[in-house]
Amino acid sequence: MSSPESAGSGVPGTYVQRTTKHASEAHEDEGKLIVVMVGLPARGKSYIVKKLRRYLNWLGFATKVFNVGNRRRTMTTESFGHNAHEPNHNSKFFDPDNTQARALRDQLAMDSLEELIRWLRFGQGHVAIHDATNSTRARRRLLLDRCQKEPNCSLLFVESICDDDRVVRHNIQMKLMSPDYQHMEPADARRDFLARLQNYERAYQTLGSWEERHDVQYCKIINVGKKVIAYNIQGYLAGQCVFYLMNMNLARRQIWISRHGESTDNLTGCIGGDAPLSAKGQVYAAALATFINEQRVRFEASLSSAFPSPDRTHSPDGTPQGDSGSPKHALDRVNESLLRHANSPSRSTLELPNLSRSSSQLQRHPPAPKFVVWTSMLRRAIGTVDAFDPLAYDIKHIRALNEIYAGSCEGMTYQEIQETFPREYADRQANKLYYRYPGMGGESYADVIQRLHPLIVELERTTHSALIVTHNAMSRTLLSYMLDIPTQEMTRLEVPLHTVYCIEPKPFGNECRKYAFDFESNQFYPVD
Amino acid sequence: MSSPESAGSGVPGTYVQRTTKHASEAHEDEGKLIVVMVGLPARGKSYIVKKLRRYLNWLGFATKVFNVGNRRRTMTTESFGHNAHEPNHNSKFFDPDNTQARALRDQLAMDSLEELIRWLRFGQGHVAIHDATNSTRARRRLLLDRCQKEPNCSLLFVESICDDDRVVRHNIQMKLMSPDYQHMEPADARRDFLARLQNYERAYQTLGSWEERHDVQYCKIINVGKKVIAYNIQGYLAGQCVFYLMNMNLARRQIWISRHGESTDNLTGCIGGDAPLSAKGQVYAAALATFINEQRVRFEASLSSAFPSPDRTHSPDGTPQGDSGSPKHALDRVNESLLRHANSPSRSTLELPNLSRSSSQLQRHPPAPKFVVWTSMLRRAIGTVDAFDPLAYDIKHIRALNEIYAGSCEGMTYQEIQETFPREYADRQANKLYYRYPGMGGESYADVIQRLHPLIVELERTTHSALIVTHNAMSRTLLSYMLDIPTQEMTRLEVPLHTVYCIEPKPFGNECRKYAFDFESNQFYPVD
Repeated sequence: MSSPESAGSGVPGTYVQRTTKHASEAHEDEGKLIVVMVGLPARGKSYIVKKLRRYLNWLGFATKVFNVGNRRRTMTTESFGHNAHEPNHNSKFFDPDNTQARALRDQLAMDSLEELIRWLRFGQGHVAIHDATNSTRARRRLLLDRCQKEPNCSLLFVESICDDDRVVRHNIQMKLMSPDYQHMEPADARRDFLARLQNYERAYQTLGSWEERHDVQYCKIINVGKKVIAYNIQGYLAGQCVFYLMNMNLARRQIWISRHGESTDNLTGCIGGDAPLSAKGQVYAAALATFINEQRVRFEASLSSAFPSPDRTHSPDGTPQGDSGSPKHALDRVNESLLRHANSPSRSTLELPNLSRSSSQLQRHPPAPKFVVWTSMLRRAIGTVDAFDPLAYDIKHIRALNEIYAGSCEGMTYQEIQETFPREYADRQANKLYYRYPGMGGESYADVIQRLHPLIVELERTTHSALIVTHNAMSRTLLSYMLDIPTQEMTRLEVPLHTVYCIEPKPFGNECRKYAFDFESNQFYPVD
Repeated sequence: MSSPESAGSGVPGTYVQRTTKHASEAHEDEGKLIVVMVGLPARGKSYIVKKLRRYLNWLGFATKVFNVGNRRRTMTTESFGHNAHEPNHNSKFFDPDNTQARALRDQLAMDSLEELIRWLRFGQGHVAIHDATNSTRARRRLLLDRCQKEPNCSLLFVESICDDDRVVRHNIQMKLMSPDYQHMEPADARRDFLARLQNYERAYQTLGSWEERHDVQYCKIINVGKKVIAYNIQGYLAGQCVFYLMNMNLARRQIWISRHGESTDNLTGCIGGDAPLSAKGQVYAAALATFINEQRVRFEASLSSAFPSPDRTHSPDGTPQGDSGSPKHALDRVNESLLRHANSPSRSTLELPNLSRSSSQLQRHPPAPKFVVWTSMLRRAIGTVDAFDPLAYDIKHIRALNEIYAGSCEGMTYQEIQETFPREYADRQANKLYYRYPGMGGESYADVIQRLHPLIVELERTTHSALIVTHNAMSRTLLSYMLDIPTQEMTRLEVPLHTVYCIEPKPFGNECRKYAFDFESNQFYPVD
């Protein structure tokens, strides 16, 4: 048992691998994974790649992206040889009949693969992602042949297909802001990019029978997970990737995260336990319900005033999908609830949109999106959502959101821990991620990640807006996932009480705003 | 918070739903799921249906199968009307051009659907499975139209496709033992069943564009999960079903389950804690390694002597798949380890196969299958696998296998609990499944199921044999999944110390054998 504890690299959850002196003979974990992306430009490959990298790193698998386009862009024109008269981003460079350019593009892809393999072989890396179009069988054969020579590595092709014109058009618009086009007129850039796209489309071969004949594992993601085809998926890691990608969606929504209001234990500095809210905590709880009600109405109004969104979900026809909309008129209820609170002292600093739509008007609209409220099962978190209307919000108290369990240190202050268990205290400071509190049931941050894992997948799956009310370590862990914060930094993240984070998933990553509650003015203020 | 605690019906893990007095207006959980099977006869539908039912029931979703063939068989010939001259299992009954029979078959399918809907509507049911071929679009339209009229129910089509001739032939062989053919000559039965199959094949329409146009969620399972196509999967439950089916395989293997050897706490009757093995427990540990070594060699020999198995995994070509075989010559190591133990007092009662193959002979064989040993992180479980060779076995100590955490009752005897917390003791006796031990971190059996959930999926995914050494409540929970024991009974299951269960997955369910260790003879004996 000389090896350090691992989080999820081979079996779910944290574990210790028993090894021997003959380390070289010992059981390797199931090996490293090379994810090779496939797909036309502007089909959401980068979106998938970024999400996957963030997810896997958070789970404890060191994951890095190797982007071939970036490598191409760092090459000088000279490296294209004497006959190169065109810059290497011009559409002619992507002409499949341009043999010289094709050889160069293959070379760039293989150079990236070598760099990627070096990183896996000599570093701490678990998963490496080869981010390029890789849109022909000839190219994929090159990559496959090379990967098969690498011991203890498996290959997973991930293809992104999108036939939703609105999404593709939007992606193309984004592409025109790429460094390739920064010195070009917009109209010229568009013309050139569309020509590049046509060149790719001429030669494009989707994943299928060839890969199946070679028994290569692959996964096709069609319209952001609306349809998924998985072939020959082997290994824990590949299975997790496929399941994760199957659960993503592009719904416009907000995910709010807050610690519980101040508890009576916060006053004395004791950790753990199940104390109720302090008087101050109760004020926060009342203000939070009003604030979230207002924000919800504002956001839902912005959704319905926008032209029918192509990305409310992964539906290609833009109609709202899934389990939203129950119960009906949730928005009405929020409005009523706001009216009830209208004379209450707590008001947000933000103006409200016009809420005068009648109930009959609402009925002609699609039902208001559902809004879920998830808290831990501890009193201070349950109390923090006491003022939320259970008819307008789907409120669940979930065990997986309970605070990190401090084992024998429950109920102590940090100073008491330092005095009573100086060695434990020092160990924890040295490696907070893997340090596990002593005593039966004591947890580490790595344990907490595993405990939150199914909830994170559920959060990716659902299309609802959400408020999550939880605890210090749990908020750190959730925010680390949401905001792509390395897990080692996550354990020191400052997440103050009486502050609520608003995360909005966007095509290029999650946006975060932060609001702090001011007890004097009884208002939430945006903070940086 | 008047509703009882739930396990996993809507979000992962156990939670409490906050409701109000207006129960009818309250948020329903995401609703009920109707799984409609699709596929030709002898394509493994029943296998999938049984596994899915077992898995979902174990997770806490009450699941029932409604088999249309059984309904047909309970009909008398008279119910077929005056013109019926043929019994209703004759292949002519399945002729798509036989309009009258087709109407009758549709009627049977719809009657089953009505029965199923009644069960979902008026009972505690979460998931109902419509088990029939449902192989035409016309039939599926009937089913879809009816399901769409049912509020708060979603529909998931699950199609099983198998083009591996060996598997289909094997399935046909099984079909000939069905009640339909019990009074027929084998040759006639085969002829008739093949004619029935041809009738189905003539009219068969696979899931695809029609379902996509109607935006129905579906999942196609090709060759027992080798390839999976998932379309428009909505909802937590449907996602869990698809992920589970994606991870199954037909590899021949053995899964061994044992509690740890006797601990010093077992001597005093204290629950929980982290005590080491007693002297007796150490004897069990030594004997267990020898016994499993022998059983492993025996089983692996039976695998390699059998003709290349069509079902070693879900690979249609019968070649071994996946991450088996590392490190090489594991079988050699097991043999060496057996030789070292040859003079030890612990010998199994079972004879060993001839182990005289030389290392060079082994090298010409495919590498020996990997064998994983999973224990909890507690001393008594780790100690129980101390004699296993970490070069021949992949040994992991996994936190998710730790014993149910008894909170404030840790370290007490049951009698002490009864005296100290009489109310808790009574509550626990009244509902052991949902009773959660008091104090921070205390768990219920329902919590334990959630904790084991990812490990169960991993056990389904992997093709390796396994030994799991864990604890009383954990063994009950694992065996309940493996052997399809209702979760309410599971909490009272008798799992003695010093007894090892051997589970072998078979096409019609898991087989279980049980071996008890006898300290006097130092041997394991099969017990009933």
